[in-house]
Amino acid sequence: MVLDIQRVGPADGPVPRGSDDVVELTGAEALFNAHHAPVGAFASVTLGASGAAGGLGIGLEGPAGADVFVGVESADGRCFELLPFFDPEVDDRARYDAQLVGAGGDGPPLHPVAAEAMTREFGLSRDTWAHGDLRFSLYSPVGVVPDPDTHTTREVADAILPSVLAELTLDNSAGARPRRVFLGYTGADLDAAMWRVDGWGDLAGVAQGRTTALVSDCADVRSGVGFSVGGILADAEGGAGLGRVGLLWAVVPAGAVRTLRFAFCFHRSGLVTTGIEASYAYTRHYPTLRDVATRALGGFDAHRGRWAAEAAALTAPGLPAQRRFQLAHAVRSYVGCTQLLDDGAPRWVVNEGEYRMINTLDLTVDQVFFELRHSPWLVRNVLDAFADRYRYDDDIHAPDGRLAPGGVAFTHDMGVGNAFAPPGRSAYERPGLRGCFSHMAHEELLNWSLCAALYVARTGDHAWRDRHAGLLGAVVESLARRDDPDPRSRTGVMGWDSARTGDGWEITTYDSLDPSLGRARGSVYLAVKSWAAYVCLAPILAAAGDDARAALAAAQARRCARTLLAAVGPDGALPAVLDDPAVHGRVVPAVEGLVYPWFAGIHDALDPAGEYGELIVALRRHLDAVLVAGVCLFDDGGWRLSSSSGNSWLSKIYLAQFVAERILGRDPGEAGRVADEAHARWLRDPRNARWAWSDQMQDGLAVGSRYYPRGVTAVLWLEPPG
Amino acid sequence: MVLDIQRVGPADGPVPRGSDDVVELTGAEALFNAHHAPVGAFASVTLGASGAAGGLGIGLEGPAGADVFVGVESADGRCFELLPFFDPEVDDRARYDAQLVGAGGDGPPLHPVAAEAMTREFGLSRDTWAHGDLRFSLYSPVGVVPDPDTHTTREVADAILPSVLAELTLDNSAGARPRRVFLGYTGADLDAAMWRVDGWGDLAGVAQGRTTALVSDCADVRSGVGFSVGGILADAEGGAGLGRVGLLWAVVPAGAVRTLRFAFCFHRSGLVTTGIEASYAYTRHYPTLRDVATRALGGFDAHRGRWAAEAAALTAPGLPAQRRFQLAHAVRSYVGCTQLLDDGAPRWVVNEGEYRMINTLDLTVDQVFFELRHSPWLVRNVLDAFADRYRYDDDIHAPDGRLAPGGVAFTHDMGVGNAFAPPGRSAYERPGLRGCFSHMAHEELLNWSLCAALYVARTGDHAWRDRHAGLLGAVVESLARRDDPDPRSRTGVMGWDSARTGDGWEITTYDSLDPSLGRARGSVYLAVKSWAAYVCLAPILAAAGDDARAALAAAQARRCARTLLAAVGPDGALPAVLDDPAVHGRVVPAVEGLVYPWFAGIHDALDPAGEYGELIVALRRHLDAVLVAGVCLFDDGGWRLSSSSGNSWLSKIYLAQFVAERILGRDPGEAGRVADEAHARWLRDPRNARWAWSDQMQDGLAVGSRYYPRGVTAVLWLEPPG
Repeated sequence: MVLDIQRVGPADGPVPRGSDDVVELTGAEALFNAHHAPVGAFASVTLGASGAAGGLGIGLEGPAGADVFVGVESADGRCFELLPFFDPEVDDRARYDAQLVGAGGDGPPLHPVAAEAMTREFGLSRDTWAHGDLRFSLYSPVGVVPDPDTHTTREVADAILPSVLAELTLDNSAGARPRRVFLGYTGADLDAAMWRVDGWGDLAGVAQGRTTALVSDCADVRSGVGFSVGGILADAEGGAGLGRVGLLWAVVPAGAVRTLRFAFCFHRSGLVTTGIEASYAYTRHYPTLRDVATRALGGFDAHRGRWAAEAAALTAPGLPAQRRFQLAHAVRSYVGCTQLLDDGAPRWVVNEGEYRMINTLDLTVDQVFFELRHSPWLVRNVLDAFADRYRYDDDIHAPDGRLAPGGVAFTHDMGVGNAFAPPGRSAYERPGLRGCFSHMAHEELLNWSLCAALYVARTGDHAWRDRHAGLLGAVVESLARRDDPDPRSRTGVMGWDSARTGDGWEITTYDSLDPSLGRARGSVYLAVKSWAAYVCLAPILAAAGDDARAALAAAQARRCARTLLAAVGPDGALPAVLDDPAVHGRVVPAVEGLVYPWFAGIHDALDPAGEYGELIVALRRHLDAVLVAGVCLFDDGGWRLSSSSGNSWLSKIYLAQFVAERILGRDPGEAGRVADEAHARWLRDPRNARWAWSDQMQDGLAVGSRYYPRGVTAVLWLEPPG
Repeated sequence: MVLDIQRVGPADGPVPRGSDDVVELTGAEALFNAHHAPVGAFASVTLGASGAAGGLGIGLEGPAGADVFVGVESADGRCFELLPFFDPEVDDRARYDAQLVGAGGDGPPLHPVAAEAMTREFGLSRDTWAHGDLRFSLYSPVGVVPDPDTHTTREVADAILPSVLAELTLDNSAGARPRRVFLGYTGADLDAAMWRVDGWGDLAGVAQGRTTALVSDCADVRSGVGFSVGGILADAEGGAGLGRVGLLWAVVPAGAVRTLRFAFCFHRSGLVTTGIEASYAYTRHYPTLRDVATRALGGFDAHRGRWAAEAAALTAPGLPAQRRFQLAHAVRSYVGCTQLLDDGAPRWVVNEGEYRMINTLDLTVDQVFFELRHSPWLVRNVLDAFADRYRYDDDIHAPDGRLAPGGVAFTHDMGVGNAFAPPGRSAYERPGLRGCFSHMAHEELLNWSLCAALYVARTGDHAWRDRHAGLLGAVVESLARRDDPDPRSRTGVMGWDSARTGDGWEITTYDSLDPSLGRARGSVYLAVKSWAAYVCLAPILAAAGDDARAALAAAQARRCARTLLAAVGPDGALPAVLDDPAVHGRVVPAVEGLVYPWFAGIHDALDPAGEYGELIVALRRHLDAVLVAGVCLFDDGGWRLSSSSGNSWLSKIYLAQFVAERILGRDPGEAGRVADEAHARWLRDPRNARWAWSDQMQDGLAVGSRYYPRGVTAVLWLEPPG
């Protein structure tokens, strides 16, 4: 079991495989699940971990846990050799036949291929497994969603086609006998049976209900449904039948090389959400599963080429293989969580991985770097939805109990699992708490305003800015009031909690970490992020003509910087909680806020010789002080977000790496290489392999935020030198 | 743990509970799942077994395996006492909060009530659990489906309302403090979250996605969604949130008795099937889940009253409690498998329990006795669907290999799990087999023609008879050809197999039993059934003017009787397989066919002094010979269908009991009482309790055909003296 990561150039086989920038893996470390997902379908062909651990799912909290059968008849015909993505015991015939009388033979046995005998080429839009003379590739998009206002219907329809393509090649040129190759799956839906597609033009296919299908338009491909792969291949009729397995297969003659093409298709029709009643946007273009199948295969080369081109744009010269691996893995998980809905107008949703919360705003602010690259309208769409429905006004209270009006705030999320929450409410936030599930008014105010600032800065959409100028001004007012309603008492840092917390207090996005990052009030992470929000909002408000609020923002930024600088400890590090010395932790996310001015192009705020030079220098010193063994580094060299917690989040590590290297000028060096290797190793750990890309790593074990979209912060690694 | 079955009269409490004829159970034997199901929604609130073993499901192969929470705050307020239908460990908060920091208290603990402290009143339309001062009832229909051609839209809409009603009463008249009562469930759908209903008029509710809901229109009922019952009840806001639990609750003041009303609602919109594209018929009347909820609660008393009246019509004076129990249990499972579709016209489906095959024809012939009582149009609907789409013509072959044209035949089923099979094909039948999954051409020809004969006899629908006269004649021709294409060689008994079997042979509905009942050719069971079909078809063909085929049927009946009589052994018993003395089994279903002439009113064919008197006498002797210890009785006194198999089927036992007692005049006596107790005990066995009513009992263990509709043969026990 050797991990062998090397740069592999564009494919050069007889079949074009796109120009994806893949990493090659072998052995047990190649056995991890990854998403292979359409854009906006909240669907996934999850594949790569050992056993019945992946499969086809729509709207699920994790992998379907079903079989995918990819295999070939052995050269001697004595067995079938399959990639190890299935349960060899799957066969529920005994349920029908208590005595298994006369059930008939199933032909040669099924042998899973050993990990050591496989290679995997893992990229953004292509994932290829090879074993002996068999080669299997899945092709999927990387998350580009054209703006329907500025692109053709055809472009949009192709981009959100709910399908993943596949190719299976058998090189039987040295073979002495014809051999069967096959691709199939076990259906995971509970309320519909597998069936053999019939009458979809020239397509062969198997499907489950009206929601998933595997189809091929290659000549001589046959289909079957049955209890087992062996049973289907042994069945002379090859027809429809009972059983959970659907299979397509063909025969490759002796001496021939043959490549078969397939499409995995998804379809969920009608209204799928509550609260806001919406359908999948793709149903407007593809009314049925058959329409998806027809377009997927009909445009096979075009789709694959488009995805490969999109993947090629998500590379940077010299990006280390371990980072390319993590970026591809993270983008795939993000895409699998995306959902483009239609309730009269397009409605963009990123579901929060295993938790499935709808557009969690503290994830939106991490995903914004990815979305602004090629689909900035998605950011605008989500910001507008928060402004329209998930905005509220609250009261705030001081630690001593004084009450005052707060101002505008935003909810943590828009609901959960296809259930949109009522206006002004999230699925997550509850009263009376001081940890997980408490309110995040201040955190989400920052996130909405930072997303807005980056959107305006990157797109130059001044019309949008001017339309929301009043709200942007109110946001700054609200932030300042949450510092202190009395301007004379302001420090630039949050001091009052939303009264929605009752006798609890507000928390940050780092909800399940310890007090070093969990509590909002006094958090160094939130303080630097507040500074960043003030810095980013001031010029936008000025440009919108709101000089008063622009000045307020600038003043708050200065106050915040002063407060932070006053808190620097004798070791050069900032405390995790500015006003509670009892919290001893040291935290990497103190520097997180620096990314926003950088991404908004406000580089003078980051200049060590500029207005905030002292703060920038202090944050560099902070990082130097904490990024050492025993503080914010794990034994394996991976980054530890907080010295007092073993729970570290990869999405935030990626972001902090970018800040450290590109904004604060730290050379990653050998320690950086070791850290990247550790982070990649966490993801491939067999204990985590089922969950595709996961965020929360407790000493390397994925304990939460699995199957998660947030890791696209890795796209910051691709930013051109600033 | 004492089983205490006694007749309980109409309820006399302060709340009307309908006039259902219930049996009362206590202790562990009361802990069995039963269906509580709307008609035609293929949906169920399955409840009664211990643990998270039941729950709400649509289109499933078995119970959802989810929690139902029925409980009350204890008199001292120190705990919540719940009926034991939940998993006390259910709480997935740790998935969100790896450290469970500040998750908040959950209030008093949840205690499942001990089986010994509960009573259960189990009837056809009412199922009531009582514990201390708490009483919980579920109300559901018993399977009446008015013919849309002859009933009003309102009558049809009410009959197929996809809802089950519930009532929860707390007698707190002796209580010193207000106490909370609650009802809730854990959602079992994988692709949608639980949510709190908002804006459905005055209703309080919780729902999962757009498919299931629990609602109440009682004042002061509150709703919540959360990780646990305790967490929801402890939540000051009681609002929507994360978690799989949805709960409704209210407070009963000290000194008060309060009854709360609820409705469990189901809804699946849009097309739900493939092959034939159809929707649930109820969606025409109830476009949304909310419409179901509104009508369910708005007509609560009317629905419950109608169901109670229907239940009252399914009783017979003096029916022993163990039979009343089995009848109610079987009817409930049948109703849960029913599905009224709409593809332009109503399409009736009974799904085959855990196997979900669509309208399995060898079950239809058992369910016909139930359906003809009050909804004969359902039988016509299924017969027409077989005639239209699931009819085929085949070749037949003799054991020596000679081939000849067969004639018309019918498929075993119409598909599986919402996937209609292509025309002329079933999901079940495969070539080349001699046991389970082989073809059933002869068996299904008999089943279609017997259903047709009973339908015509019971309804007098001569228009339908005349419309299908050609087909009815062709059926008799086909049956005769499958005896032997050469009239001179005919014996009245099947001799040729469908060529669709390839090198296999045809089987009977007793597919998973041993050769004593499995093989079709020469089967004594099928022979007597063939005789019955000929006897029943002859007068219908004559009435339709087809004298030639009427004469053929009569001649075949006589030949068949002669063949059977010639096979009687020295012990008075018929062999299981007429032409294979190597099969030594003795089988009860030899007498099964007698039910058809009886039900068709052709009593002279059953007269011991009539034309077939010798056969009737022989079959009585056969039954006397086999219904003895060590042959066709188990050690516990239960009936064993075949002396050579431990696998016995309750649906067929019920039918055979009817034949034995009512047609062959056997007094069940003490042995009958012991048998009834054994059969009821099988169903309540803790190993079987999860599966509601099951058919295949291997030495008392439900090994197959679980969650099954076929047991409504028990309705024959209600037939008036003939």
